[in-house]
Amino acid sequence: MSSAPGRRTGLLFVLSAPSGSGKTTLMARLQRWDRRLVRSVSMTTRGPRSGERHGREYWFVTPSRFAAERRRGALLEHAQVLQHWYGTPRGGIEAARRRGRDVLLGIDVQGARQIKRSGYPAVSVFIQPPGVLALRRRLQGRGTETPAQIRARLALARRELRCVPEYDYVVVNDRLDDAVAQLEAIIMAERCRVRPAWL
Amino acid sequence: MSSAPGRRTGLLFVLSAPSGSGKTTLMARLQRWDRRLVRSVSMTTRGPRSGERHGREYWFVTPSRFAAERRRGALLEHAQVLQHWYGTPRGGIEAARRRGRDVLLGIDVQGARQIKRSGYPAVSVFIQPPGVLALRRRLQGRGTETPAQIRARLALARRELRCVPEYDYVVVNDRLDDAVAQLEAIIMAERCRVRPAWL
Repeated sequence: MSSAPGRRTGLLFVLSAPSGSGKTTLMARLQRWDRRLVRSVSMTTRGPRSGERHGREYWFVTPSRFAAERRRGALLEHAQVLQHWYGTPRGGIEAARRRGRDVLLGIDVQGARQIKRSGYPAVSVFIQPPGVLALRRRLQGRGTETPAQIRARLALARRELRCVPEYDYVVVNDRLDDAVAQLEAIIMAERCRVRPAWL
Repeated sequence: MSSAPGRRTGLLFVLSAPSGSGKTTLMARLQRWDRRLVRSVSMTTRGPRSGERHGREYWFVTPSRFAAERRRGALLEHAQVLQHWYGTPRGGIEAARRRGRDVLLGIDVQGARQIKRSGYPAVSVFIQPPGVLALRRRLQGRGTETPAQIRARLALARRELRCVPEYDYVVVNDRLDDAVAQLEAIIMAERCRVRPAWL
């Protein structure tokens, strides 16, 4: 990947978290902290929730469109979670990084693992909810899932916790302000990291 | 290295900088920011400068005492810089880390390289002065070196700059507050880093 001379190539920050651990809020806070951070918009075959907008929360596409994008190699990773497909369009990330912009990508554990295995340069952070009880409370508070969906999410969250060793960093989202400060620190620190010139 | 159960083993942060790049000020600022940070006090055979105190800036020892400490393996690293010996007593660092305290160690490039090669777990940061002109101004402002000593320091600084790729992080000390914020971010981020259990 090349970049304009004298300008640093942007970094890709991969943030994973069990659903309900506050990932969306954290990412919004990070973007308020540094407005130059670009959020990668994923593609999904699931339907939009109330208030979600095409191109903002997700690119909402049909399964056949999703399959076509995947076939032409336009997705950095793709994964199936609870019957729906999710994928990361490569083009937007590459364009932002070439302009020297750092990119935030919120994806599940399967997706993060695929990116790591592909060798794509990324800094990965696992957002850990303070505990299963707190996670259940947050999911119930959100009120967008049925009890069965909440049970499935919690089971998934427990499995995902085992993946922490695959990540570069772990941030426990116990108090929101602390978690935001830790994420900001990780981004600042990674900007100071000595890297081979080709990354 | 073992630690009390449930308590995180402390980290060792190695900070190197050409003389006059503000390392001493930066370390003092970091200790004010987090009073639990322990500063490793090095051992040296050079004489104390005005205002320096035995056990605070350095342990000032005779060449024969230094050689004895080195022989009994009590030094984590040792190096000769401009005719004087400098070394890092291992005992204080290990004790602090076992108590869960993070340690700051300001040493030259030779010392940092020795620690890296020894395999001792450390996070290394190179503090880069904004430029040779600024470095000269700072050394002259300090007024503790002769013109010949300043020339030798500048030549050393130029050689040391080539060592940046050996470090984990580089912080340019252009504006002091920015440099302090970056160092704080590196310390916070490293505390979130996922590590094998044995580190």
